[in-house]
Order: sequence, then C-alpha cells, then structure tokens
Amino acid sequence: MSDLVTKLLARAAAARAPLAIAETGAKNAALDNLASSLRAARPALLRANQDDVASAHQAGLSAALLDRLSLDANRIEQLATAVEAVRALPDPVGEVADGWRRPNGLEISRVRIPLGVILVVYEARPNVTTDAAALCLKSGNAVILRGGSEAQRTNGLLAELLSAALASAGLPPAAAQLVPDPDRALLSELLGAQGQIDLCICRGGRGLLQFAAAHARVPVVPHAEGVVHVFVDAGSNVPQATRILVNAKAQRPGVCNAAECLLVHREIAQALLPEAGGALAAAGVELRADPTALALLRRARVPAIPAQEADFGREFLDKILAVRVVPDLGAALEHIARYGSGHTEAILTPSLDSARRFEREVLASVVVVNASTRFNDGGELGLGAEIGISTGRLHAYGPMGLRELCSQKFVVRGQGQVRS
Amino acid sequence: MSDLVTKLLARAAAARAPLAIAETGAKNAALDNLASSLRAARPALLRANQDDVASAHQAGLSAALLDRLSLDANRIEQLATAVEAVRALPDPVGEVADGWRRPNGLEISRVRIPLGVILVVYEARPNVTTDAAALCLKSGNAVILRGGSEAQRTNGLLAELLSAALASAGLPPAAAQLVPDPDRALLSELLGAQGQIDLCICRGGRGLLQFAAAHARVPVVPHAEGVVHVFVDAGSNVPQATRILVNAKAQRPGVCNAAECLLVHREIAQALLPEAGGALAAAGVELRADPTALALLRRARVPAIPAQEADFGREFLDKILAVRVVPDLGAALEHIARYGSGHTEAILTPSLDSARRFEREVLASVVVVNASTRFNDGGELGLGAEIGISTGRLHAYGPMGLRELCSQKFVVRGQGQVRS
Repeated sequence: MSDLVTKLLARAAAARAPLAIAETGAKNAALDNLASSLRAARPALLRANQDDVASAHQAGLSAALLDRLSLDANRIEQLATAVEAVRALPDPVGEVADGWRRPNGLEISRVRIPLGVILVVYEARPNVTTDAAALCLKSGNAVILRGGSEAQRTNGLLAELLSAALASAGLPPAAAQLVPDPDRALLSELLGAQGQIDLCICRGGRGLLQFAAAHARVPVVPHAEGVVHVFVDAGSNVPQATRILVNAKAQRPGVCNAAECLLVHREIAQALLPEAGGALAAAGVELRADPTALALLRRARVPAIPAQEADFGREFLDKILAVRVVPDLGAALEHIARYGSGHTEAILTPSLDSARRFEREVLASVVVVNASTRFNDGGELGLGAEIGISTGRLHAYGPMGLRELCSQKFVVRGQGQVRS
Repeated sequence: MSDLVTKLLARAAAARAPLAIAETGAKNAALDNLASSLRAARPALLRANQDDVASAHQAGLSAALLDRLSLDANRIEQLATAVEAVRALPDPVGEVADGWRRPNGLEISRVRIPLGVILVVYEARPNVTTDAAALCLKSGNAVILRGGSEAQRTNGLLAELLSAALASAGLPPAAAQLVPDPDRALLSELLGAQGQIDLCICRGGRGLLQFAAAHARVPVVPHAEGVVHVFVDAGSNVPQATRILVNAKAQRPGVCNAAECLLVHREIAQALLPEAGGALAAAGVELRADPTALALLRRARVPAIPAQEADFGREFLDKILAVRVVPDLGAALEHIARYGSGHTEAILTPSLDSARRFEREVLASVVVVNASTRFNDGGELGLGAEIGISTGRLHAYGPMGLRELCSQKFVVRGQGQVRS
C-alpha cells in the first residue's frame, strides 16, 4: 500500500473515535463554520473552479460534465445552504431506535452509532464534496472523499475549508479528508482496505461503479441504474395518470427515478393512450410502443415508433419511453420482475386489491401507489438530505440519509443479572 | 464457475421470489413438517451421524469436534424443538418498521422484506443446518448451506428433510439447498458469486473466517472473536460483582461472550480482588494479574500468576482471566479501546455518570451495565433465535435474529402527487 493511502487511513482511524462521541453542538458548530467559510471563500472558490473548468474544457469534457463541474455565485450559495440543511437535521447518533424489557428485568435498547470510516467516490460535481462531508460529519463518521480529477482544484480548496471548520469546532480536522491524487491506482488501494473502511459509497457513471465492484474488498453500496416502470391499472383516472406519467418521464429524464417504461392494462389502453401519449409527445417524449399500443397511439395521431425487444429493461435517461399493453396486473408484475432493476416501481390504480398486491409482490427500493416515481429521493421521502440511493438490499435499500449512515449497538442495563 | 455452483445459484435465484412473498401460514407449515420429520427420521439420522462420527474419529478429529458433530436422541429432539421455536416467532416479512406522512399527503412506510439469497458457511455442528434453514425460511430468504465435510452424511439427510418439508407446504424445495460437496474450491466459487448471493454468514473458527475474508466478493457478516472486558468501578457491590464475574468467565469459558479481562478501579481493588479472585480461582479460573492486582491477590492467598503484555487483548476461550487495576474509568475506557474487539463490554458500577459515559463511549455490539457479558445472545436479548453475532457494524451489529435477516423497502401511497 502506498504511503499516501496508509497515511490517509491512519488519520481517518485516529479521527473516528473522537468524532463518534462528539457532542451535537460541536458537530453543528463545524457545519455552521463550513457554511460561513464557503460564503467567505467565494472569490477563491470561483478562481479555483475556473481553473478546473478551463483544464476540463481543454481536455474536451462534454458540455454536460462541464456544467456539473462549474460553480457560480448562486451554486456556492447552494453549497452553503445544503450544509445548513444538514445542520438543521436531528443528530442520529444516540437515537434509541428500539427498546424493551426482558422478563428477568434487563432493559435492552438499540442505540444508533456511526458506522466508522466512510469512503465516498464520485465524479465531477464539487457539491458532492460538501454534501457528503456534511452528512458524514453530522452522523459522526470520518469520511475520505475521492472526487474526480476534473474538480481537483475546487475540491482541494473545499477540503481546506472542511478541515478548518472541523478544527474550529474542536473536532479532528482529519475527520474529512480529500484524496489529493485522483489516480485510479490509489482508488484501488482504498477499495481494498478491508477492515479500515466500513462503507464505500460510490456515486458515478457505470464505468466507475464497475471499477468499484471489480476492485472492492470493502463493502460498497451499489447505486445501480433505475429501470423504472409505471403500471396504469384498469379504472384509473386518466387525467391524473397523464399528469403523473408526464412528471415521472419528462420532468427530469436524466435521473434514475425517471420512468422508462409504461405498462397499460388493456382495459384502459384505449382511454389512456391517446391522452397520456399525446401529453408525453407534447412534452417531447419519444414513445416506443408494442404493436397494440402502437396501433392505439397511431389511431389517435400520437407520434410513436415500434418498440424493439431491447427497449424493455433499458434505462434511457432521456426523453424516450417504452410502452406495452398488458392483459392484467399479473402480466405487469411478471414484466417488472423480468425487466425491472429493483429501483422504483409504480402502480396507478383505484383498486385496493391491486395496490395491495403490487406493494407486496414488487421488489424495489421504493414502491409507489398513485404518485410519481420521482419521489424516490431522500428529501422527498422525508429523510432529509441523502448521500445516495442504494439498490442493494444489505444495510440500506433506497435513499440513504443520516440514519442509514449509522449502525446500532445494544445497550443492556441490569441490576446484577447473571445467565443461568 | 463449476456446473454444480451454477446450478445451485440458479435454483436459489428461482426459489427466491416465491419464498419472499410466501404466506406466513405456508412457512409455518413447512417448519411444522420439518420438526415432525426430524423426529420421525431419528433412526436414519442416528445411522448417518454414526457413520460421520466414525469417519471423523478415524480422521483423528479432536474430542471437542467429535462432540459437536455427534447426535443422539436428545439432540435430535433439540433440533426439532429449535425449529418449533422459530416457527413460534412472529414473521418479520411485511412488518412496518416505521411510517410517516409527508406535508404533501404522501404516506410513507418502511416494510421489512427478505434479503434474498443467503449463504451460510459453518463447520461440524449439524444443528446449524436446521437452525439456519429455519431462520432463513421464516424470514423468507432462500438459503445455501455449506456445512463441514465431517457432517456431510448427517447434513445430506437433514437437507432431504428440509426440501421435503418445503415441498409439502407448497414452497420451492430449492429454497434450502445443501452444497453436496464441501470442497474449498466450490466454497471459493460461492463466495465469489457477486450479485447472486446477498449475504454470507460464516460461523466457524478463525481459519474459516480468514478464508472467507480472503475470497469473498459477496458481503460477509464477520463473526470475529470476543475480547471481552468487565470493568468494576469504585463503589460497586462486591458480592454482586463477584457473582457476575464468575458467571461471565466461568459459566461457559469457550464462547465469544465470556469475559477475558477484568479491569478494576483502584479504589475497590483491595475489597474486590480477594473475594472475586477467590471465587474465580475456586471455579478453576487461572488469574493472570498485573503487578498491583497480583500483590493484592497474593496477599489474600488467591493463586495468581503475573500477566504478560500478550495476555491483554487475548481471547483465551478457556478458564483464564487477565486482571488489571486501573486508576479510573478513563483508563478503563482507554484499555478497552486499545485491546477490545468490539464484541461485548461491561461495566459494574453504582454511578449513573459512570454508566452513562461507558454506554456512550464504548464501541461494542453489546454494552452491558451491571449484568453478565453472557447476555450477548439473540435469545437472551429477546430477538428469538439467532443466526450468529455480527462483529461488523454494517447491516447488523451484535446478535442477528429474524429482523436482521431482512431489508426494508419504502412503500409510498399517494393520491395523484407529482414532484414540482
């Protein structure tokens, strides 16, 4: 292992214990300091970021990535307010998640504690640096931040502000460290540091996720793709279904909780497809429809093209929607079991029986009834900010907020009990 | 990957979904069937087990391992009653762990679901076969059982009973499969089956755990050693402390929640050590004491030998106890942070302040106040049966019962909400 990684890990290990038992007041003070110093450092941040953007531009980064990388005055203010939002959340550490009394008088409670040391791996967005650090700090976890090379100057400055904010609140500055060199060999070393990193959260494109899966010996929360379906059941309210479908598909098509496939119960297809299809097409969505749906759409003069088999089970991340007419709920469930990715699945239905069966049988981190799939989000579900959306069932499934960055220990209070 | 492992994994994958949504009644019926068939198959089980024991004896297995491997009529009855005890536990699947309403009217609940496919790796004890299968079945998880080669004939017969019990309740027989060949190469393949096994629970000696840690690409819950301390604070009740210490050390010295080190506040050392030391020595415990403790013990004519540095931080799993006198609670906390293994730690104290500080600052899966460390056990803590004790903080920390074999999905119920 390189000296650099050995040192990073040793510092994180030393910071872990004091941070884990830090008072809420000290953690909040550090977050306040961070928010103020982000605002105060605006000129320096803009300069560092302009250098990053200029290099990235020269290196031929796409316009989308350049946009993610870029800061302006408004975005710096957003970094600060996001930190303040985490500060305002309740401290999860010490929360009693559950408790009971045993027949022998022992009082058992399960108390939230930090996980320990968290590695966050991400790409161009500098906001992840402060968001992830704020969430880890509030949940008492030491964090090692490994951002993308494009943002290295911006992140370097953000990391200085972080350490200073920690120190000024009497907390170990090494509780938040940035990997100073975004080399993949160093990342491999970190991912291999079994026993020294308690959790790796990997936010990035498929390439980065595959790299992490291939190299990790530490636990990685997978953030896999969202192949998201909306099933419109017989008897649904057509204007409401239309509104939900347009929101689920077109409000922000490039995100993982956007719908990718519409399944329509055949009894409502004739009523739904002209109206919903028309609204989706008007929102710029390309419909790729199975033969039944295609015929109905074309009869209603809604533009649509034939779906290929490969259009099902696909994450378009674009204004494209696969459409299939199914004979019943059972067929919709089979389609979702076969093509879904376990991320977000929705049913629109007036039937309590259908809702109940869908809720019970669909395996997804968020199962939605009569609402948009876009609600699979930590803020929208009420967790406060999120550090990511887990698509694995171990430890946390779905959006991960402060509580999901914690473990629980048992506290057992007795009055002299021994085991017989 | 070998055909054998490919086939095992494919069968487990096919069994996963139907088992995950099986009704409680069907799962309970399978457990009832299993309990009856264990009793009915007693002669055949005894024959298969006698063959295993004979081979193991020839192969030179230790007396302790032979004892773990052996079944008799009484132990077969215990297998059946353990299955019935799991049957009597509430079904964790579908439990609403938490729920709330959002300002926009969305109703959020977090519902327990099975993890999916669980691999259980263990050694000679045939009871793990039925215990683990019962817990996985009740929690809706498909299980792949990989027992030790010594118990292969016994386990083979138990696996037949398991599959028959599942089938007779209308559940997929492949929901519980035994790896028919305990070859380590096959185990490596299973441990490498990333994405196909959701969790590996590894119950065994250090060699097996190290093998799993070295080869696993699937998540493994660590079951590491218990370097367990008891700190006796100033002002403690000496007879109560003595009773607890004898229980914690001598009731069953070979288990992970047995005490390995006694830390004594110097203000109580003179009062405690003669009485507690005497009782421990009378129970056959060898005391390895630091100079201060040694002097006090010898003055009281309690047999003791000098502790070496290597005696601290050591899991003896035997009737041996390291003893150290410390100046105060802070020193005890430092000793535990340095030498403890995060398994079980106890304080005996009359002071609310000391108890609060110990509870808060000690990092262990179970932190005990004024009771024996032997209560770190799923049954004793009220979880019902346990599949193991996790010493890792991810997903579950401490004893793992039915709930710890589950994940949670979000269910979101709306009335037409879209995201703005």
